[in-house]
Amino acid sequence: MKLIRYGQADQEKPGVLIDDTRYDVSAYIDDYNETFFTNNGIQRLETLLADKKSDLIKVAGDIRLGSPIARPSKIVCVGLNYTDHAIEVGAKIPSEPVIFIKSNTALNGPNDAITIPQGSEKTDWETELAVVIGKKASYIKEADVKNYIAGYVLHNDVSERAFMFERNGTWDKGKGCDTFAPIGPYIVTPDEMPDIDNLHIWLKLNGELMQNGTTADMIFKTHYLVAYITQFMTLLPGDIVSTGTPAGSGIGLKPPVFLKPGDIMELGIDGLGSQRQTVQAYGQV
Amino acid sequence: MKLIRYGQADQEKPGVLIDDTRYDVSAYIDDYNETFFTNNGIQRLETLLADKKSDLIKVAGDIRLGSPIARPSKIVCVGLNYTDHAIEVGAKIPSEPVIFIKSNTALNGPNDAITIPQGSEKTDWETELAVVIGKKASYIKEADVKNYIAGYVLHNDVSERAFMFERNGTWDKGKGCDTFAPIGPYIVTPDEMPDIDNLHIWLKLNGELMQNGTTADMIFKTHYLVAYITQFMTLLPGDIVSTGTPAGSGIGLKPPVFLKPGDIMELGIDGLGSQRQTVQAYGQV
Repeated sequence: MKLIRYGQADQEKPGVLIDDTRYDVSAYIDDYNETFFTNNGIQRLETLLADKKSDLIKVAGDIRLGSPIARPSKIVCVGLNYTDHAIEVGAKIPSEPVIFIKSNTALNGPNDAITIPQGSEKTDWETELAVVIGKKASYIKEADVKNYIAGYVLHNDVSERAFMFERNGTWDKGKGCDTFAPIGPYIVTPDEMPDIDNLHIWLKLNGELMQNGTTADMIFKTHYLVAYITQFMTLLPGDIVSTGTPAGSGIGLKPPVFLKPGDIMELGIDGLGSQRQTVQAYGQV
Repeated sequence: MKLIRYGQADQEKPGVLIDDTRYDVSAYIDDYNETFFTNNGIQRLETLLADKKSDLIKVAGDIRLGSPIARPSKIVCVGLNYTDHAIEVGAKIPSEPVIFIKSNTALNGPNDAITIPQGSEKTDWETELAVVIGKKASYIKEADVKNYIAGYVLHNDVSERAFMFERNGTWDKGKGCDTFAPIGPYIVTPDEMPDIDNLHIWLKLNGELMQNGTTADMIFKTHYLVAYITQFMTLLPGDIVSTGTPAGSGIGLKPPVFLKPGDIMELGIDGLGSQRQTVQAYGQV
């Protein structure tokens, strides 16, 4: 299954995407939020599609997609999880995963504009595979992680490098600016993602290929990461875990390249669809 | 006003504390959550007390207090904000505020037990003055911060030092463990806190005074911090901003002292009441 949320920002309705057709499920499902995932929402949605697919209303036209997950309790991200990216930012290869929390107010639709924050000169991109947690998870084992995953989703972990590295704080300062977490276009359930450890992952800036990697190059694999994070904090249904980015972010180029108003980012991962974002200055409409 | 939440964990009801008597306001107020603060909840509560105080039901007996704020969208903390604490942990005096995000699953009642996480050997305490945000705040100025504060609250920013400093990540890894954010006993509205920059702040471990400071020693003052954070992320109504701890945490002692099962912490700040926590091992009932 592919789960979408569509409509104006903060008024999105839940839907599903079947063979390129969008269907509205808002008559049956309140939203794709913590309550939905807690109460076996994915299973209920499967039953709904089996029983009532012919009754569902198609969503026609050129609609906006929101994040396919309503605001989660948290977005936990992994840093430096591809050797080539760790090298390009001048960091050591991590001996265990680097984790940080991205403010959930950064959440954005997959094709919404990205806003360069006030005072920013180093806004950068990071294409990432993210996990949607399906069940409350604390101190779980890697072998059990499959029972805790509701699905997978594409994430551009937009990052302000000066805020991260030059402003005297943890990375959180450069990760949680508004619009810095475009998620989607859809959540894909695990049955449609048989091999998450071998997916092409890419990003184009103004048509030029900048990131061109594979999830096979992750230092710590996705299931390991989820289990690892639950040793430090409890993950709740609907939470997002983002697994790091391969080489090719702007800070790794010589000389570095950072985003400027008018830039267009397109990015994608095999099976998880693609995003397209226009970059704008703060205050620009 | 002093706002409390009381009852069993995850089933707390909102109340108020007036002259040491607790009153139930759950017939009129759903909860002290983002919706409450967004919709002028503090003003509605003032009106309620003016109009109906005599109708309110007293809450008798020995009840559990929960966090006086229902789970916020985020808990943003400031590190190294007292010179003496920065020195005791061996850090430089910060040139601008250090901020990080504490997982909101760490939220706990003010007198609930603190659980030492699995694998922890360096669980430590940090008594802090925290702000409750009353209004959505993005790029606000220090002079305007007073319009964005719903109240103040006591916070023990419990911290695992090895997870923070020796496990190869940002501090978030050692800050968000379950039970690591006891908040309360109550939110105090700003009218009752005329001078937040001059409050005694203390903690006793097993009866012995460990922290004995004053908010006058903050490097960056509370209103400045709130304005500063909103340059990097949007704060939502009900969010918690915690302003750092003075000297006297366990890592600063020679030799260092960390929490062990059976330890008792008592802590407080002038005007914000006090907390009392028993420390337990993971899995201990």
